[in-house]
This record gives sequence, C-alpha cells and structure tokens, in this order.
Amino acid sequence: MDNRAIGVFDSGLGGLTAVRRLREALPGEDVVYLGDTGRVPYGGRSRETIMQYAREDFAFLMGFDIKAIVVACGTVSTVALPEMAEDYSLPVVGVVEPAAKKAAELTKNGRIGLIATRASVSSGSYEREIARIAPDKQVFSQACPLFVPLVENGRVSPGDVVIETVAREYLAPLREKDIDTLILGCTHYPIIRDVIADIMGPGVALIDTGGEAAAELAAILRARDALSAGTREGTCRCFVTDSVEGFNESAGRFLGGGVINETQRVSLN
Amino acid sequence: MDNRAIGVFDSGLGGLTAVRRLREALPGEDVVYLGDTGRVPYGGRSRETIMQYAREDFAFLMGFDIKAIVVACGTVSTVALPEMAEDYSLPVVGVVEPAAKKAAELTKNGRIGLIATRASVSSGSYEREIARIAPDKQVFSQACPLFVPLVENGRVSPGDVVIETVAREYLAPLREKDIDTLILGCTHYPIIRDVIADIMGPGVALIDTGGEAAAELAAILRARDALSAGTREGTCRCFVTDSVEGFNESAGRFLGGGVINETQRVSLN
Repeated sequence: MDNRAIGVFDSGLGGLTAVRRLREALPGEDVVYLGDTGRVPYGGRSRETIMQYAREDFAFLMGFDIKAIVVACGTVSTVALPEMAEDYSLPVVGVVEPAAKKAAELTKNGRIGLIATRASVSSGSYEREIARIAPDKQVFSQACPLFVPLVENGRVSPGDVVIETVAREYLAPLREKDIDTLILGCTHYPIIRDVIADIMGPGVALIDTGGEAAAELAAILRARDALSAGTREGTCRCFVTDSVEGFNESAGRFLGGGVINETQRVSLN
Repeated sequence: MDNRAIGVFDSGLGGLTAVRRLREALPGEDVVYLGDTGRVPYGGRSRETIMQYAREDFAFLMGFDIKAIVVACGTVSTVALPEMAEDYSLPVVGVVEPAAKKAAELTKNGRIGLIATRASVSSGSYEREIARIAPDKQVFSQACPLFVPLVENGRVSPGDVVIETVAREYLAPLREKDIDTLILGCTHYPIIRDVIADIMGPGVALIDTGGEAAAELAAILRARDALSAGTREGTCRCFVTDSVEGFNESAGRFLGGGVINETQRVSLN
C-alpha cells in the first residue's frame, strides 16, 4: 500500500484525457497534474527543445512526494523517453509501450497505423517498439499537425467540414495501406475519435494511448502492492504555466466531468 | 546618420513579413531579428504570460547595439505596449498605432474591421487607439485563432476548402457590419491576403500592419537623421529559441526572397 500521489504531465490540456482514464481505472489515487500551457504545443518543436522542456516538467513533478509518473504527452513519450526515464528510480509510464503492445495484440493482418504530432512521427519510437515486441508487424505513420489546434478550437464534431476535410486528407494514406489497427498517438485525439472512426470504418480498431498508459500503470502499481488504501475518492491537483482561468475554462472538455480540486499557476525555469 | 541595427521581434516567423517591408522601405539598414519559436504562438496565452515573454524579448534585443525596436508581434503590440515601451529610451514601434492611423485615413464610411489573435482582440488596443485619433470611427473586431496554425501548415491558397471555410466563418460578422477597411492585425495574415480579399470583396481596403510599422519607423528615423549611411545592402541576423533548421526551412515563405545572413539559437531565460 502506498498513498502517495501519481504525477502526470502533458504539454497542455490533452493529458487530462489520460487522467480521466486513470481515475476510471484507479478511482482512489491522488493525481498531481502538470500542464505546460505557457509553452504548448510541443509537437512541432525540435528534439532539443522538447528534451529541455521535458527535463523541466520531470523536475517539477519530482518536487512532490509521488510514487510514479505518467508521461501523458505523446511528443515527450516518443522523443524523450526512455532516455529520461533512466534518470529516475520511480516507475515512469509513457504512452508508447502500452499502446504498441495493445496494437500488436489487436492487429489481425499485421498492419498498424499511427497518427501523431510531427515530432512523434519523426522520432520513429512506435516503429522501434513494435519491431522489438512483434517484428512481423508493419507500422505506417502519419503526422497530423493541425489536429491539436483544431481540437483546441472546438472543431471536433462529425459533419464539420474543416475537421472532416483535414482528417480525410491525413487519413487517406493510412486507408490505402489497409491497416486494421490505428494508434491515436496524441492525447488530444480521443476528442475527435468519432470523426476518425467514421473515416477509417468499423474494420479498424482505434487505440487510445492515454487509456493504455493508465491500464499499464494500474498493473505496475498492483504488482508492487503500491495502490493507495483507497477508501475515498482520489484528489486531482493541477499546476499550469499559463493562466488558471484559461485552463479551468477548457479542462472539463478533456476530463469529461471529473473533479479538479485545485489549480495553481507555476513557473518551471 | 546612425549605422546601428534595427531590432525586430515576433513570437515566431510571422514578423519576417514586417522585416520584408522594412527592407523594402530601408534597404540599407541592418536588422537583428528575434523569433521566440520555442514558445510560439503567443496569441492564445494570458496577458500575464505575454507580458513576461515580451519583457524577455525586449531584454534580449537590448543586449545589442540597436537604435530602434519594431514589435512585429501583433499580440505583444496590443497587450504589452505602450506600457513596456515607456521603460526604454530608444524608439519602439508597434503595429497598433501605424495601422490605426492608416485605417482612420482610408475609411470612407467610418466602419473599420480588425482581425487578430484572441489576446489582441481582448486587449481592445485598436479600439482605444482609433477612439483617440478618430473618435467618429467605429471598430468591429474578430478573433481568428485558427489562422496562425493554418498558415504555418501551408493552408494558404485560395480554393483550399479548409482555409476558405474558416476564413468565411471568421469574416462573416465583419461583412455584415459593412466595413470598408480591414486591419490584418497579425503578421501571419498577409500570407493569406488573397483569401481574405476574395471574401471581403474589392470595396474593402486591407491594411498590412507590418508594412505600416515599417513606414512609421522609416519616418521616425528620417526625422531624427538616424538612417544608416546605406552604401551597401543591410544585413539580417536572426535569433530563435527553437531549432535553426526549422526556422530556416520556413523563413523564406515569410521573408519573400530576402537574404538572412546568419541564424543562431539562443535561450531567453
């Protein structure tokens, strides 16, 4: 038993979709969430800049008495892990390994698609991980740089010509590859799951990376007997690098009704 | 005569559209350009964060031997000036005053439109400036938060259904207001000038804020006898907070063929 909190970080609000899944899986756990909203988005930045920001995000969370870290940012997971995780003694769960494992399990024809930010696709992380655990599978990846700003501006509804047009363009090459499994490699993408599902069709399984990371963390904590006593509902404390008001306005859309107990603005450097 | 350079800054690459106009107006001047590409975009961030970033941008440029500063960032111009300019003894030209003056001159029916980032529109800066210099004119403003990511992802051509749909939605309220003059209040917008012009029609004059700022600076330097000796073409040194490669890849689209003599990566804090 371990009542310490779980640290979660993302470049912005998207990681709250992972917090949502985490609280569904482990409702008794306290969460400390860091959203680097003053520097979001990370996905179009260089490896060097992402590494620097990730180091600062990690250092901030390590200032709390936490038992594990979930890197809910697809870009940091692909670009900075596992290199950074080695520097820490506590469990660090990114989104790549859990989603890659799930994709390798689910695919029947061995053809897996990945959609993610430019930085994530360039990193080749999913390809490497899937080659390691299931070398007979193929991965086809596609950067979707406009998905994050479109989601953040509320262009998320099936039927919206803007999100539909952009999504059809991005997904067309993956449809041609005859994939049967698609990794949603950014925590913003579950918000447009319906749009993506409509375009890919019922024969393609969609993998929510935040949900897989939450399940992986739950398994790790159980195996270590490190779950909280859990007689009460866990708390969620949020820390952001831009205004609290801006965060609180949009957080609900990502968290899906979960409660945030407190939000504070902080500086990382 | 003053051979020192002119400092120009923007949150990212957009300010290069102002550098282009500056070099057309004053080809003999040296330019030191700062693009805070590691934290772009500013336009959706809070006032507090924008003020902090602007202070760091100013401080960086003040480390050079410069004779004037052009704030080519619409968001910083509207949110942080004139408050910040008062702290410096050299001329500081933002985009608001020159564009407001031009709009007040050009409008025949007294109805001026403004398109800009969310932060710029919320600041009310253009309204205040136009009320000061031409209190009989009315200003109608519209935030266009998707224009920057769409331009940065190359969705700039007339006929592209994505930029056309978004632009039609954003501009519809301004068309209803029967404006005859429209301020393009962000240095990214000249890149989609044709799309905007098609939608607004020939009866609406479009004002390029970077161009007006360049003209204003030229007038100030002339009045102070502070132009460079100018027997050679001016240089352009660029400083960015994300990778040099990423900047150099896209700079040409904004600068329109002008030469960049050197680009360096720097840290602002």
